[in-house]
Amino acid sequence: MSSVIGYYTTKFGELWSKSLSDLIKETVNGVLLAAKLEKKQIDAVFFANMLAGVLENNLHSPAKLAEIIMRNIPIFRSEAACASGGVAFNLANSYLTAYPGKTVLVVGAEKMTDYSPEEVSQALAGAASGEEQEAGLTFPGLYGMIAQYYLEKYHYNEENLAYVPYKNHYHGCLNEKAHFRKKITINDVLESPYVAYPLKVLDSSPISDGASALILSSDKNLIKKTKRSVKVLACEIITDTISLKNRLRLDEILATKMAADKAFYQAKIKRKDIRVAEVHDCFSIGEILAMEDMGFWKKGEGGKKIKELSTMFGVGKEVIVNTSGGLKAAGHPVGATGIKQIGEVYLQLTKQAVNRQVERVRYGLAHNVGGSGGTAVVTILGI
Amino acid sequence: MSSVIGYYTTKFGELWSKSLSDLIKETVNGVLLAAKLEKKQIDAVFFANMLAGVLENNLHSPAKLAEIIMRNIPIFRSEAACASGGVAFNLANSYLTAYPGKTVLVVGAEKMTDYSPEEVSQALAGAASGEEQEAGLTFPGLYGMIAQYYLEKYHYNEENLAYVPYKNHYHGCLNEKAHFRKKITINDVLESPYVAYPLKVLDSSPISDGASALILSSDKNLIKKTKRSVKVLACEIITDTISLKNRLRLDEILATKMAADKAFYQAKIKRKDIRVAEVHDCFSIGEILAMEDMGFWKKGEGGKKIKELSTMFGVGKEVIVNTSGGLKAAGHPVGATGIKQIGEVYLQLTKQAVNRQVERVRYGLAHNVGGSGGTAVVTILGI
Repeated sequence: MSSVIGYYTTKFGELWSKSLSDLIKETVNGVLLAAKLEKKQIDAVFFANMLAGVLENNLHSPAKLAEIIMRNIPIFRSEAACASGGVAFNLANSYLTAYPGKTVLVVGAEKMTDYSPEEVSQALAGAASGEEQEAGLTFPGLYGMIAQYYLEKYHYNEENLAYVPYKNHYHGCLNEKAHFRKKITINDVLESPYVAYPLKVLDSSPISDGASALILSSDKNLIKKTKRSVKVLACEIITDTISLKNRLRLDEILATKMAADKAFYQAKIKRKDIRVAEVHDCFSIGEILAMEDMGFWKKGEGGKKIKELSTMFGVGKEVIVNTSGGLKAAGHPVGATGIKQIGEVYLQLTKQAVNRQVERVRYGLAHNVGGSGGTAVVTILGI
Repeated sequence: MSSVIGYYTTKFGELWSKSLSDLIKETVNGVLLAAKLEKKQIDAVFFANMLAGVLENNLHSPAKLAEIIMRNIPIFRSEAACASGGVAFNLANSYLTAYPGKTVLVVGAEKMTDYSPEEVSQALAGAASGEEQEAGLTFPGLYGMIAQYYLEKYHYNEENLAYVPYKNHYHGCLNEKAHFRKKITINDVLESPYVAYPLKVLDSSPISDGASALILSSDKNLIKKTKRSVKVLACEIITDTISLKNRLRLDEILATKMAADKAFYQAKIKRKDIRVAEVHDCFSIGEILAMEDMGFWKKGEGGKKIKELSTMFGVGKEVIVNTSGGLKAAGHPVGATGIKQIGEVYLQLTKQAVNRQVERVRYGLAHNVGGSGGTAVVTILGI
């Protein structure tokens, strides 16, 4: 079994003075310092990045990482749209299962704000099905259709959705690495312009720069020496069709449901054991669906539950969701997101979450999605 | 330990009537038929592709594969330039080491000829270092510098290089799936136009379309039932700096040397046990350097050895190299290449190589390189 023994993330945001390489170097140095390790103790690197190929003609990133961080070990790049980080973590975890006694670095990074929103939107739309792209659907459009269907079917309205960013912006204020550290009101959300009906600007995660890194080890002696280690109890991936037209139902992400079922089975714990979760809130509807699909809430109940603030820090008594601020307020540098989610859970489980520290945390979960549900990764950590 | 239990490749070439999806579907159906398996017996898919993101804004390929081949299992995409296929195979092999009793599909595919040579060259150059790209260096230029240095240092001339494509085109004639099935003479090579001095058109692998697939299993019962199975004795990756300026020497690819040393150590066999090898001949100099770096030949000896035709089918008595035709004659659809190399060794080891079957083969090797040596993967198979 492998354990997370260190985490670092750069600030997320519009980091115009920093290149992709700068962000990677900062986060790698940061995580080695956090884990008190030297580069020579790393046996392999798993790197997550979605867009550098399309945006800056920057492919073969493993060799670029060798150039700037460490040479002559295996370096792997994974890409699964916004789930690239979760997938990299999954591969790292399998690697350590295959080769016990090793220690690996998992790095996710994305540089998005040097390009126009049109360029970035088009590149992100590359993760959708060709047919849907040709029909002019972008991800806000796809999630907008899902949101509209959900609200109609279960008799909710846009106000229900607004509680997701309301909560996550509140959490973002508590996270010094977050892209947005500003409280917003339900009215702010409702009065923000539509992006794709019924989703508005403030229902949507931003375009951000950032890099995050974890150190994962199956070296028993090293784990024992580390004061702050957390066990990886499960990390499950399901890949499903990306086209909405091939789904059995629009109000469920089947990949999330299946990955969560497998992960809880593997981790041998119950939903109620989870006290903190980072859940993929690329759009408000995403967090609501995921909480239902992972079995924390019943299907259709999410619109009500989110309004009760049962998942808000300082208010809710059960699972607290997205203490980092989520994708919405912490920011969404695509390749980094899945790593930051697991990192936030690690911080909570090792009592390093300072002003947003949830009490009595033994188990936490991270949920990372690619596209409109084509890839889902569910990771469960425990102390 | 995992075993290869099936292989299929599409024809490589200018396949204008076929899309990337068409090629993937053909190769997946082909390999399942070859291994007599059904889709439901596959536990995970490892997919190699370099350029679809840049050329056709096609990212998040795992979800696209779920759409066209199989849903609700984990699907992983790897990208490491021209070594993407070898890397996907490595990850699949690690996965099976971690989770014994599973069976996975490894697929590599690339669609290149729908774009202009300028577009493809620019996309491929994305695998080089940013600095080298800015200086106007493409891969022919980088390999040209290496070739010039090698020829001068060891007192060879362009004729020595020409024996690589001469041999590989001869082999390509024997492979019905090869892009080029045409014998060429040494004079043909020497009289072909320069691409980047001293490398000429006929020293260079072509731009091709194609897809290849392998089935890899650690399910002992399944392997036992399969008539044609080959053991994976080692699969090692080394990632090194991509910039030539950061290399200690220009006449050696350190990543190849280190990966080969690790692989032979792991496989517990000697160089002389290898009877067939597929070696990354993106440019003529590539095959010569690799044969030296992997320890088949002494450093500097390659220019002489290649001229003796010691690695040519029907002529050489030691290791026979690139019976598929290599990248040069079989073609080089980037993501597929590393899979096809291992597939060719599998065909040789299972006596399915018909008119190019090497005799008394017990061990074979595949060598796959990304860029000008930023990634090297060495795989050793045995019966």
